[in-house]
Amino acid sequence: MKKVIVIHLMLLMVGSLQLLAQQQQKDVEKRIDEIICQLTLEEKVKMCHAQSKFSSPGVERLGIPEIWMSDGPHGVRAEIEWDSWNYAGWTNDSCTAFPALTCLASTFNPELAYKYGVAIGEEARYRKKDILLGPGVNIYRTPLNGRNFEYMGEDPYLASVMCVPYIQGVQANGVAACVKHYALNNQEVWRGHINVKVSDRALHEIYLPAFKAAVKDGEVWSVMGAYNQYNGQHTSHHKVLINDILKGDWAFDGVVVTDWGSAHDTKEAALNGLDIEMGTGTDGLTSSTENAYDYYYLAKPFLEMLKSGEIDESVVDDKVRRILRLMFRTNMSKARPLGRKANQEHFDVAREVAQEGIVLLKNHKSFLPLDPETTQTIAVIGENATRMMTIGGGSSELKTVHEISPLEGIQKRFAKANIIHSMGYASGPSAYGRVIPSHLDTDSLKQAAIQVAKEADIVLFVGGLNKNHEQDCENGDRKSLNLPFGQDELLSEIMAVNNHVGVVLVSGNAVAMPWQAQAKAIVQAWYLGSETGHALADVLSGDVNPSGKLPFTFPVKLEDNGAHAFDALSYPGDGVDQVYKEDILVGYRWHDTKQIKPLYAFGHGLSYTSFKIHAAEVESAQYQPGDAVQLSVNISNTGKQAGAEVLQVYVHDSKAAVMRPLKELKAFRKVKLAPGESKLVEFSIPVDSFAYYDEDKEEWHLEAGQFKLMVGTSSQDIRKTLPIEVK
Amino acid sequence: MKKVIVIHLMLLMVGSLQLLAQQQQKDVEKRIDEIICQLTLEEKVKMCHAQSKFSSPGVERLGIPEIWMSDGPHGVRAEIEWDSWNYAGWTNDSCTAFPALTCLASTFNPELAYKYGVAIGEEARYRKKDILLGPGVNIYRTPLNGRNFEYMGEDPYLASVMCVPYIQGVQANGVAACVKHYALNNQEVWRGHINVKVSDRALHEIYLPAFKAAVKDGEVWSVMGAYNQYNGQHTSHHKVLINDILKGDWAFDGVVVTDWGSAHDTKEAALNGLDIEMGTGTDGLTSSTENAYDYYYLAKPFLEMLKSGEIDESVVDDKVRRILRLMFRTNMSKARPLGRKANQEHFDVAREVAQEGIVLLKNHKSFLPLDPETTQTIAVIGENATRMMTIGGGSSELKTVHEISPLEGIQKRFAKANIIHSMGYASGPSAYGRVIPSHLDTDSLKQAAIQVAKEADIVLFVGGLNKNHEQDCENGDRKSLNLPFGQDELLSEIMAVNNHVGVVLVSGNAVAMPWQAQAKAIVQAWYLGSETGHALADVLSGDVNPSGKLPFTFPVKLEDNGAHAFDALSYPGDGVDQVYKEDILVGYRWHDTKQIKPLYAFGHGLSYTSFKIHAAEVESAQYQPGDAVQLSVNISNTGKQAGAEVLQVYVHDSKAAVMRPLKELKAFRKVKLAPGESKLVEFSIPVDSFAYYDEDKEEWHLEAGQFKLMVGTSSQDIRKTLPIEVK
Repeated sequence: MKKVIVIHLMLLMVGSLQLLAQQQQKDVEKRIDEIICQLTLEEKVKMCHAQSKFSSPGVERLGIPEIWMSDGPHGVRAEIEWDSWNYAGWTNDSCTAFPALTCLASTFNPELAYKYGVAIGEEARYRKKDILLGPGVNIYRTPLNGRNFEYMGEDPYLASVMCVPYIQGVQANGVAACVKHYALNNQEVWRGHINVKVSDRALHEIYLPAFKAAVKDGEVWSVMGAYNQYNGQHTSHHKVLINDILKGDWAFDGVVVTDWGSAHDTKEAALNGLDIEMGTGTDGLTSSTENAYDYYYLAKPFLEMLKSGEIDESVVDDKVRRILRLMFRTNMSKARPLGRKANQEHFDVAREVAQEGIVLLKNHKSFLPLDPETTQTIAVIGENATRMMTIGGGSSELKTVHEISPLEGIQKRFAKANIIHSMGYASGPSAYGRVIPSHLDTDSLKQAAIQVAKEADIVLFVGGLNKNHEQDCENGDRKSLNLPFGQDELLSEIMAVNNHVGVVLVSGNAVAMPWQAQAKAIVQAWYLGSETGHALADVLSGDVNPSGKLPFTFPVKLEDNGAHAFDALSYPGDGVDQVYKEDILVGYRWHDTKQIKPLYAFGHGLSYTSFKIHAAEVESAQYQPGDAVQLSVNISNTGKQAGAEVLQVYVHDSKAAVMRPLKELKAFRKVKLAPGESKLVEFSIPVDSFAYYDEDKEEWHLEAGQFKLMVGTSSQDIRKTLPIEVK
Repeated sequence: MKKVIVIHLMLLMVGSLQLLAQQQQKDVEKRIDEIICQLTLEEKVKMCHAQSKFSSPGVERLGIPEIWMSDGPHGVRAEIEWDSWNYAGWTNDSCTAFPALTCLASTFNPELAYKYGVAIGEEARYRKKDILLGPGVNIYRTPLNGRNFEYMGEDPYLASVMCVPYIQGVQANGVAACVKHYALNNQEVWRGHINVKVSDRALHEIYLPAFKAAVKDGEVWSVMGAYNQYNGQHTSHHKVLINDILKGDWAFDGVVVTDWGSAHDTKEAALNGLDIEMGTGTDGLTSSTENAYDYYYLAKPFLEMLKSGEIDESVVDDKVRRILRLMFRTNMSKARPLGRKANQEHFDVAREVAQEGIVLLKNHKSFLPLDPETTQTIAVIGENATRMMTIGGGSSELKTVHEISPLEGIQKRFAKANIIHSMGYASGPSAYGRVIPSHLDTDSLKQAAIQVAKEADIVLFVGGLNKNHEQDCENGDRKSLNLPFGQDELLSEIMAVNNHVGVVLVSGNAVAMPWQAQAKAIVQAWYLGSETGHALADVLSGDVNPSGKLPFTFPVKLEDNGAHAFDALSYPGDGVDQVYKEDILVGYRWHDTKQIKPLYAFGHGLSYTSFKIHAAEVESAQYQPGDAVQLSVNISNTGKQAGAEVLQVYVHDSKAAVMRPLKELKAFRKVKLAPGESKLVEFSIPVDSFAYYDEDKEEWHLEAGQFKLMVGTSSQDIRKTLPIEVK
């Protein structure tokens, strides 16, 4: 009887708790009002800027907590000192290094993005971080951009779909995600000041959608500004980008944080929507009696303008309200879990993302997979076979519990083979001061590798970029599309002595491949984090059937990329301004429309099995605005092993009032199929997503008329085309 | 109607939440079982020792948090580096410095102890600390002990009553208090190894009661071991003290932590109840590949003994269970508040404790209070008028937001007076390297002070000890009862030229006063923290009527103290052993029983008003064991201003089978009275508290017979004596 009463009470409680929860949401805004009433002007201002490299102050007298932030988007960074970039020497801050986000994008698997977000959010939470500074969703405009590896590729729809579950996963831990870098931070050269000029269409159709999705679908709690300018104003305090679009049109109710040191003006920062200023350099301003952080744009200078009445107090109140709202969602929420880190489940997520993100670009006569039972001699050549890629790259550098190198992974899985490693080339000292032994000059490394290649049955070349200065690294772009450190020459010479060369490219960018025709297989392996070698061996051995798809185009040569098809003003700019001359034709949109064949197309990626799209049908051929096209696609696995294909649905506008790309991705689905299995895959695609941004009316416009749905397995491999009409 | 339903549901919810809460407590033990099942032996061992100077690891893969600890008992210490004693240079770690605990004891006000505990607990919580390393309740045995200022005086009952609400206040914040140093750490000389020999009676009647009260009444969640040995075994892993008494007799269910570096043996630590080892020096053991913390007694050596079966796994399971239990009470509890720090309310608590703790020892012809409107010349002489006392002292050193010096407080309150400060003497460089300017040699300082004294109407001498090496500081005892740095001579010379000298003693210990007869007033001002000068000026000006009472005896000379009445084996020991030859006769128990008149007695403290005890009555003259004596005392304020008196009830055992002290404190009450006001104060005193510890039977024994209740305002000022009989 007592038990019955308890159950009865508990049921009633569940109901009343739900009522309470709704009430609590309303109460939060009321509580924020009450807190703001108690704050002095000085306290309000203090909340709007850093107190250390990665924290901003609360109001200690009222128990309003500090906010602790952390890099980075693919692993929670090690602790640094209070006010220096030196590591603090803690031993509790090693992490799971997840694959960099380009790899996540390559999975085309939003469920994995959610798992990734939950896992990294748990790591941030365990480390007592309130804001995780990611994901990065800047669009891949040029393969030279040093930070592309941190982003989600060249397509706004793909980046949008992939970033939303990541954000939701992170925030399920009571840790704010911070989508970055808002906006137009598409190169590292001159990033601190370059003034980007871009059409409104390209802005809205290409560069903003992922941020919009993060805000409107992901309900992200914070956004990071960027270093660069747009139309003459710094993006971290930009009237149009922040006030009008982000906080206006999109109704973003969270916090805008600078990138570290991206604020440049107090009044603009105050009035144009910046909420927290971080990382502004104040070198030389600190004395024994003064705090350098007082000199931040949103510190004393802001306070003075508030006191003089030049800026109204409602301005700082709005910032504080947003900051408090973030706190009620994070460090003032009793609901948040405790987090955990570096656990097997997280390493498993890292490995799973890596397995699904690795892209098999080429596989001549099924060179891959290699038989794990082979006793042949395998030469593993290349510096990246052993180089730790969690080190370097800039703010995304990680201290991981372990990082399985490609060589280690290969040695472990191909235990019966005769594995010989030869470095082949050396990239020079890393950010950590690694120095090439003096006896290893470039030529002797090369000769040694060629000798090894001669003697091997199979060569696996593991090269690419090195996540260091000007080779996929913050604060510098690449200088060329080619592989650095003489790898192209080395590969040609290796291929001259061995006819069984597979190439594994470790990079976050497209590279030129003058040796492409001679390679028996090419694997794009990204920066895979802790489980690099395991995941790579999984794919090389066939334990895992590759299913990754390129999130950006590999052009044959740099000039084939839209950003590089014009003069220097288009890339990298003239040192002051930059004009995005390719406009909306970014990535495959450029290649398709200009009919420039890529080396490897957006969406491309091979499997060890084969798939067939038998049929694709739409429920109706005619639609009204607001409708969704109901599309069903019948696909089967026609090969002998389980695998996954990514069905990609592009839309072509047959006739438009404005120039439109030949096709644009509007839907995709990763379909896992057993050998011989068929599936009917259903899509529901809003026709409103076919709209373009009308620059005159400054709104999205869905034009009536004919469209084609193009169903394929890459942007260059369209299997079915279905005409529809929008009335 | 809807509102009615909500209220109805909420009422039901309150009921069911209570049921749930009860269930949750039971569930915690079950959840702990479940967690322990999931832990590897390595993980269990890891939880039992430090990972840095002030943290111990959790199990990151399971989301079991780390434990962060902080000194100290009268303010939350500044952040230090991960594995060094250097300050980390953070700017968010300044605190409210509360008065050191001897001052709290002097208030004889348990309600204030609770406020103090809540406030310091809030500061610890805001700073994300899980264990606050305090309070210290070692008994004041000798006035030379360098850490007496951190403790609660010489009487076990007073220390017991005052530490319990402090602990409850701290723990109300979801922060564990850590009562220390368990046990017999009553001097700093040879503290690391000295082997204390003490009778079972003295142990149980004098040295353990405050710890027992902390455990049984305060329900403290952690206990810190001590550096010294007792009966040949280190106290931090002591079979009798920890296993038999603390965890056995007292059923302590929390965590035993070492003092920093007080563990000395793996097997003893494992088997004798130590749960977490902190601070053990591992100098020279760290290499680039090895972690020094692996060499802790409860690290690898413990793991090896567990693996070999030399120690049973149940041993580590018990430790982990206790650690997890502490976590469920602190950092795994969703109920804990957020804390706050350095707020006005905390400074107010600090000031209130200081106001009530300052003891007016002497006040010849109402020398005090001084008229705040005076325009006279007041010479404020002495280094302690300006010396920061939050700095120094050892682990209790603090970085406070502000520390109002005595001079500052006096200047502020006596704004119309002509205040002249003269240093008078210099104590030498502090731990922070303060150096006396070379032109200020001792003699010139003294001559300058005497000159100033000559010219002044009033002299306020602010001297005492300096909370630095061998003058109230960790890791060293005082060498003499006298004031250091030539203050006695200086005072005599000042008194020779000025007949209006008041003395303010800043110290945590009794001092000799050869100049006592010449002083017009003597104020014992302790280490008062942030609000030092304010609180002192409050008392000097009469804004606050002093009500503090001495928590320990001031002997005329060192030899009058029981610990010093014997040979060196009694104090400081022979370098190996030490025998507490005064046995149970500690403090006033010695003076009373041996009829040695103290300079100032335990419980002594004057007021600016006068009190009269009109009557004291007991409800009955005869009691059974288990009864409580119902005592009522009629007291009135016979003076002209509001004030507070501390009624003290001592018990005298008229005839006993064993030697008993002349009297022992069994109850007290601070009574605040308006001028002319009377109050009837009621006490309920358990007769069981009259028992002594029977060494043969190893249990407390209440002997039948005659007792006397002695009601007074100090141990030497008994106003009423009431005979009672225990049957």
